[in-house]
Amino acid sequence: MTSENNANLPEGIPDRLRQQLEFAVEIDKEKNVLRQTHLTGHGRREDDAEHAWHMAVMAAVLSEYSDEEINTGHTILLCLIHDLVEIYAGDTYAYDEEGKKTQKRREEAAKDKLFSILPEDQKTYFADLFEEFEAAETPEARFARAMDNLQPLLLNNSNDGGDWREHGVNVDQVEGRQKRTKEASKSLYELTEQILEQNVKKGSLKGSPKE
Amino acid sequence: MTSENNANLPEGIPDRLRQQLEFAVEIDKEKNVLRQTHLTGHGRREDDAEHAWHMAVMAAVLSEYSDEEINTGHTILLCLIHDLVEIYAGDTYAYDEEGKKTQKRREEAAKDKLFSILPEDQKTYFADLFEEFEAAETPEARFARAMDNLQPLLLNNSNDGGDWREHGVNVDQVEGRQKRTKEASKSLYELTEQILEQNVKKGSLKGSPKE
Repeated sequence: MTSENNANLPEGIPDRLRQQLEFAVEIDKEKNVLRQTHLTGHGRREDDAEHAWHMAVMAAVLSEYSDEEINTGHTILLCLIHDLVEIYAGDTYAYDEEGKKTQKRREEAAKDKLFSILPEDQKTYFADLFEEFEAAETPEARFARAMDNLQPLLLNNSNDGGDWREHGVNVDQVEGRQKRTKEASKSLYELTEQILEQNVKKGSLKGSPKE
Repeated sequence: MTSENNANLPEGIPDRLRQQLEFAVEIDKEKNVLRQTHLTGHGRREDDAEHAWHMAVMAAVLSEYSDEEINTGHTILLCLIHDLVEIYAGDTYAYDEEGKKTQKRREEAAKDKLFSILPEDQKTYFADLFEEFEAAETPEARFARAMDNLQPLLLNNSNDGGDWREHGVNVDQVEGRQKRTKEASKSLYELTEQILEQNVKKGSLKGSPKE
């Protein structure tokens, strides 16, 4: 497997290092995968690399809210790599029901293609990390997924729910997505509920305010 | 200290969590700090958050090339936070001699302002991480700084040295910046030398090719 970019590497670099550098150059493309979330201050749309960076720093700041003990370094790593497959598979919006039907298949193919640029041992290592995040069966994966929920929620809330308004999202749809936050952290799930309630009251999210 | 953004957080959130969330929203601004480096494929200019993410993933892939034993998780954390102060201090281009005169003062003030949004213990924790990166006295900081050198080098090399051409950069200037790579990794320093040589030969960098 070779990457699709022109890494332009000099001759004479050892094979293993060459593969690792081709991977390093290839993942630059994650910066071109746009999400539906807008930056604070009603800015432009965010890209996957920015989102992953933001989640990772948030994991470092908020790890004390995990209900289970977690290795913060490992959680950060899961945050950093969780969207790499979207370089080939594209971003699937959380409320795009058609896109979600093919998401799993597209992401599996992308995973093989991308991580095969790396030496065999690292291909396995990174594919395992990606699968750990997806399966959400470890405390670290659950907390990383809570960050994946909370990060766009904070941005969108700071923008008065503009992304939800634009897509006509219902509060039940958002709540349905917060399962991992509930599993990972009682405090952050309570925060999430408060933020959703505030946005229902403001009319940014469709649905009835709870009494 | 309160942040300058409108995080729009609901009433009734505990003080500590509120401070942490305001910090999480404030650092979104790192995505608006543009660097001189362009993305692969002669793309747009890269921002600080993308750069930090890229360095962090590269640290995970390339840690075996550190000449000293390093804790990869800690190295990754240094990569993630090393440019946060630029939210207020701005990016200083590596070859901007005027800007570099005031860089230290601007970044110190920014460090106090930004990390003071956090609770006191985390203010100290993150300020210490930033200072560790700057001082380059730990193996992890040296390797993180090697990533800070190598990441733009790989992008720029993939673009035929466009950023160097645009700024009329001399190979000696670039070599002078690679001290931390030399301290951190013999293999990656050798790679760096090969990449620079290639760009001198192509005329992307000013200077004489070595024989």
